[in-house]
Amino acid sequence: MRGTVGELGEFGLIRELTSRLTTTRAVRLGPGDDAAVVAAPDRRVVASTDVLLEGRHFRRDWSTAYDVGRKAAAQNLADIAAMGAVPTALLLGLVVPADLPATWPNELMDGLRDECQVAGAAVVGGDVVRGDTITVAITALGDLRNQDPVTRSGAQPGDVVAVTGWLGWSAAGHAVLARGFRSPRAFVEAHRRPEPPYHAGPAAAGLGATAMTDVSDGLVADLGHIAEASKVRIDLRSGDIDIPSQMSDIAQAVGVDPLQWVLNGGEDHAIVATFPPDVKLPARWKVIGEVLNPSALPHVTVDGAPWTHGGWDHFGEGTGAE
Amino acid sequence: MRGTVGELGEFGLIRELTSRLTTTRAVRLGPGDDAAVVAAPDRRVVASTDVLLEGRHFRRDWSTAYDVGRKAAAQNLADIAAMGAVPTALLLGLVVPADLPATWPNELMDGLRDECQVAGAAVVGGDVVRGDTITVAITALGDLRNQDPVTRSGAQPGDVVAVTGWLGWSAAGHAVLARGFRSPRAFVEAHRRPEPPYHAGPAAAGLGATAMTDVSDGLVADLGHIAEASKVRIDLRSGDIDIPSQMSDIAQAVGVDPLQWVLNGGEDHAIVATFPPDVKLPARWKVIGEVLNPSALPHVTVDGAPWTHGGWDHFGEGTGAE
Repeated sequence: MRGTVGELGEFGLIRELTSRLTTTRAVRLGPGDDAAVVAAPDRRVVASTDVLLEGRHFRRDWSTAYDVGRKAAAQNLADIAAMGAVPTALLLGLVVPADLPATWPNELMDGLRDECQVAGAAVVGGDVVRGDTITVAITALGDLRNQDPVTRSGAQPGDVVAVTGWLGWSAAGHAVLARGFRSPRAFVEAHRRPEPPYHAGPAAAGLGATAMTDVSDGLVADLGHIAEASKVRIDLRSGDIDIPSQMSDIAQAVGVDPLQWVLNGGEDHAIVATFPPDVKLPARWKVIGEVLNPSALPHVTVDGAPWTHGGWDHFGEGTGAE
Repeated sequence: MRGTVGELGEFGLIRELTSRLTTTRAVRLGPGDDAAVVAAPDRRVVASTDVLLEGRHFRRDWSTAYDVGRKAAAQNLADIAAMGAVPTALLLGLVVPADLPATWPNELMDGLRDECQVAGAAVVGGDVVRGDTITVAITALGDLRNQDPVTRSGAQPGDVVAVTGWLGWSAAGHAVLARGFRSPRAFVEAHRRPEPPYHAGPAAAGLGATAMTDVSDGLVADLGHIAEASKVRIDLRSGDIDIPSQMSDIAQAVGVDPLQWVLNGGEDHAIVATFPPDVKLPARWKVIGEVLNPSALPHVTVDGAPWTHGGWDHFGEGTGAE
């Protein structure tokens, strides 16, 4: 324990934070200069930015700093994977109150570092400023390894829709936490620390995915982005979407339809993609729907009908952390 | 006028913001997907992140949203140039209160876009979330064009220290604004909208610069980073540092030593570098000191003596925007 970030000072805190980092071969110049230098082997770099705010995207009484770091990194690295790229690097813009114990940003950095390691990336730089609300702004970079990026706009009528990773676990964990419980732990842990299937993104690109995204706003909402960009309709078959029995049990206990968690819950960062109908998918992909011609129906339907429970709008009136 | 950002909603605001953007040849995939794709012609990418907070780094009553955009972009693009790289792209993480008029982020984006154009770059992506304090987190990317990055650690005893760009103008403008005045406009404008000499960074790399940085914390403080990283002492000759007569006039009017603005004032984003003694520098570079062996004196001295007025620590107790 070294007191607060205010006592450490800007340069002291930066020194502590950077001392915790590890590196990779892709990092040509790490933290400590005006900018970092990262390998971009195929002459392109994939880049994505996300911002997390305390109270809105995480709560310190629900998640440790380490978990916030894991989650913040995962959220951004999943965006890179969802383009079909391999994550290489992460930059951190951090706002911290002066009276925050220095352990908090240190443990945040440990979480960022460890999640980067899972994905094969490294933290290469950042900025720390003093402010009232803890704010974690992350930029992730990635390498397409000579494959074309898989955008949201390439889905074709006749394609299949397939998903890999977890769906609804974070939402179920949130429901548990919001009711004051700390278990079942598997769901609470899934809310605190998502596990995106990073490898599946580049693999899907190699398998010929026509469109891809990670599930951050909810399956229906994120497939809506694909359907809108691709000018198609996507129909999901609810019977093909697995709902674990444990999730059904919690849903019953709290009185909600678990399909709502699976179809609307974001933050698990599953990867969902469309593929030509003759694709041979590895076992961990599950086909859950198909791409159709656009119609008068909404962009995404479930069993042929509109799905009326909306996704998450980050400017809507949330109820605390989500 | 379309009301507030809360009324527009997340996706509406993102649509407005991205509709204002322009692109360049380096942008392979712009905003609207999980991530952007940017050219990295020499198989490396330079990346840097900075965070600006309302009240701390800008004030809405002193600067328009457009000026904040220009300044936020300039600050980050200057970091790229200070590595010897050409800026290519910028990503924005933006926190805005729901009751903020939508014109504010729109004009911010116009400023980011226009400053990017000055530097040859483009805004390629971002994230917008709702929060209490306007927060502008920027990541800039750049292309080294087959040159080695110029770090802070290569200065050698015997090298000359040279600077290009503006020094002390932003600090003088801040002093004017802090006293409730809005003129002389040249200095107020310099505070609102710095003009980093972007081209000078890659040019200095080509001229054999041994170490380089942009002046963001103040000349003495930033040269201190070079001296520390290079394990040298840097001595500045105050007589070789130009102080414009207008600046002397303001300094006299407000009762400060203008050398303090020039040596401690940050935010103009001049570029300062060390070069081998036989270098032939273009006319816009000014030699202001030399690199010496380390000694018992501080890392940076002025006319051979310690310079006692400190630089800026972002965790220290500031007096409003700086």
